[in-house]
Amino acid sequence: MSFFRSRWVSPPDGVEELDPADLAPGFRAGGAHCGLKGGGKTDIGLLVCDAPEVRSGLVLTRNAAAAAPVRVCRERCEAGAVRAAVVNSGNANAETGERGYADAVAMCEAAARSLGLRPQQVAVAETGVIGVPLPLDDVLAGIEKAAAGVSEIGGVRFSEAILTTDRWPKRCTLRAGGVTISAQAKGAGMIEPNMATMLCFVQTDAVVDDPQAALRAAVDASFNRITVDGQMSTNDTVLLQATGAAGKPLPAGLLEAVLMQLAIEIVRDGEGAARAARVEVSEAASPAEAERVARAIANSPLVKTALYGRDPNWGRIAQAAGAALAGDDIGDLGPEAIDAEELGGEAEEAEIGLRLGRGEHRAHVWFSDLGYEYVKLNAEYTT
Amino acid sequence: MSFFRSRWVSPPDGVEELDPADLAPGFRAGGAHCGLKGGGKTDIGLLVCDAPEVRSGLVLTRNAAAAAPVRVCRERCEAGAVRAAVVNSGNANAETGERGYADAVAMCEAAARSLGLRPQQVAVAETGVIGVPLPLDDVLAGIEKAAAGVSEIGGVRFSEAILTTDRWPKRCTLRAGGVTISAQAKGAGMIEPNMATMLCFVQTDAVVDDPQAALRAAVDASFNRITVDGQMSTNDTVLLQATGAAGKPLPAGLLEAVLMQLAIEIVRDGEGAARAARVEVSEAASPAEAERVARAIANSPLVKTALYGRDPNWGRIAQAAGAALAGDDIGDLGPEAIDAEELGGEAEEAEIGLRLGRGEHRAHVWFSDLGYEYVKLNAEYTT
Repeated sequence: MSFFRSRWVSPPDGVEELDPADLAPGFRAGGAHCGLKGGGKTDIGLLVCDAPEVRSGLVLTRNAAAAAPVRVCRERCEAGAVRAAVVNSGNANAETGERGYADAVAMCEAAARSLGLRPQQVAVAETGVIGVPLPLDDVLAGIEKAAAGVSEIGGVRFSEAILTTDRWPKRCTLRAGGVTISAQAKGAGMIEPNMATMLCFVQTDAVVDDPQAALRAAVDASFNRITVDGQMSTNDTVLLQATGAAGKPLPAGLLEAVLMQLAIEIVRDGEGAARAARVEVSEAASPAEAERVARAIANSPLVKTALYGRDPNWGRIAQAAGAALAGDDIGDLGPEAIDAEELGGEAEEAEIGLRLGRGEHRAHVWFSDLGYEYVKLNAEYTT
Repeated sequence: MSFFRSRWVSPPDGVEELDPADLAPGFRAGGAHCGLKGGGKTDIGLLVCDAPEVRSGLVLTRNAAAAAPVRVCRERCEAGAVRAAVVNSGNANAETGERGYADAVAMCEAAARSLGLRPQQVAVAETGVIGVPLPLDDVLAGIEKAAAGVSEIGGVRFSEAILTTDRWPKRCTLRAGGVTISAQAKGAGMIEPNMATMLCFVQTDAVVDDPQAALRAAVDASFNRITVDGQMSTNDTVLLQATGAAGKPLPAGLLEAVLMQLAIEIVRDGEGAARAARVEVSEAASPAEAERVARAIANSPLVKTALYGRDPNWGRIAQAAGAALAGDDIGDLGPEAIDAEELGGEAEEAEIGLRLGRGEHRAHVWFSDLGYEYVKLNAEYTT
């Protein structure tokens, strides 16, 4: 099994891994090059469900400066019955004003026309440079080209269409308990020039009664628990589509495991990251307190540079926790309360822990390190 | 005038700059080497007021994992009548348990004994490595040595005693309106291995009616408006002592200007920083909103790497603002709302602005950039 390779993910038993080109039954996808990315790379992707019925869940960024495609999804999509998604990489269509909004609507309309759907059935997602208007004619031509090529084995092509600075693709097709699930994600590429955009698309022929609730819960346990640099993108989008054609539910824990593995891939591939870590804060006085402390540690540049430098520096963890609880008094958190040893180890996935001794609540967050490559990626690219 | 060199600081008229070795009348200071720092460097400092009367203000970190010296100051000092301060650099005496607390008390007692004071009249501050017990005998011997050498021209020696990784000393002695003010600060050195500890000591012969209120206001406008990496130290301490012997008040704005210049020095010297910036957020719906957005921008690693890379990247400012106001909708913040030009300029002090268009409140924060030196300082030093 090569997809579930993180120590932190436990998939249900009996999961079979298929070729990620093969989509879950009832779905077709594809991609084309329209010129947003250089080198002839695939930069337009199209995904469509042909099954008689489809139910969907759609989770969008909460960033107050959301990009045009996110606002189009918020305002126009039939979020519970999304049939298709049109995606481009290379241009985020963010901070592009009314023109950007109209362009995103035009992308939905073009995809709908090509696929014989209504625009409200099409979600749109974009990632890449911000503040630059789309070359709309090229994009619309690319959509038509991609539509002509969508196929049941288009998973790989589609996953390539959404990549920006990812060092490797993030995708899988899995079979378990009589159902199939396929998924494609992109990670935290921030050059060109900006956004830690996370996109993820999940398709299944399983019966999912409440896809919105199922997706929300799985996202809360995965993508909402990772941090590369504490930033929230203007473009983050996660779409789950389920046809129900297999007549069986998803095995318990499978959706969570898929999203969790993809989330950890994003951390591992985050902004020049070399190592990933999980911090678990326990014995907190409340769930909110556990969460606040875990995020403070995960976002602390001192902890992140210690992870990069393999320095088992528990003092930085104590300091970050103390800052998160400023105004309070947590006394001394010595090495007996802080497991920082793996910060200093060789493992690519380090597990660290902090016991606050104030109650019985806990929370965990995954995060990446902060090294020279982060600075290089983010400082040396000039708009 | 070489002390007030920041574009952002406007001292009152008629300020004369004296030798920073000369303390304000009524104060003596000095330093010694006791072995906490290598190379024979001064690592113990002592400051004492001999004037008949002294009033003081004392501002301490709010970090919930406060170091032993901070807790000793909180619990034992007569905060309004501090006569002396004993300081070491090289060991923060943080996360050192009951022994650390007893050691900090012992430092106060030793300083008091050497100077003929009560321990409650002595503030203690420490900075440096955390989680390592003090070599108390050496420290106590150092205090005795320092006490033997305190003098009216000990300002430079004392300011050297508090430095850790600072690239230059931060100190001044100024005369204006018939009063003298002297000050010594240290900045954001975080290796050895950890803390962005800020220490600052201010002495004056002016009349200051409510030193605690005056210091609190000046700290709020200066040290509380800077961020190097969003971290809050376990050891931050600011002490103001005023004898009133000059019979005149401080010229309006002088204390604020001194602390503001010192705060900006700390940003400029922060963790391998190359450039400093001030972000002003205006047209916010509330003071808290303005503050939240300004701090989100100042702490955004994407904005900080753009400052380092001289990239006038307004998109990153929009994204940070949007993330700070997550769940809300601020629409598009294009270049007409964001002044990011100086991010890309040659100036060592860049001024950037953001107009939210939501109200009439404003806030500003100073911050440092994030470059290779930050990673080097914080990742390559291994405990």
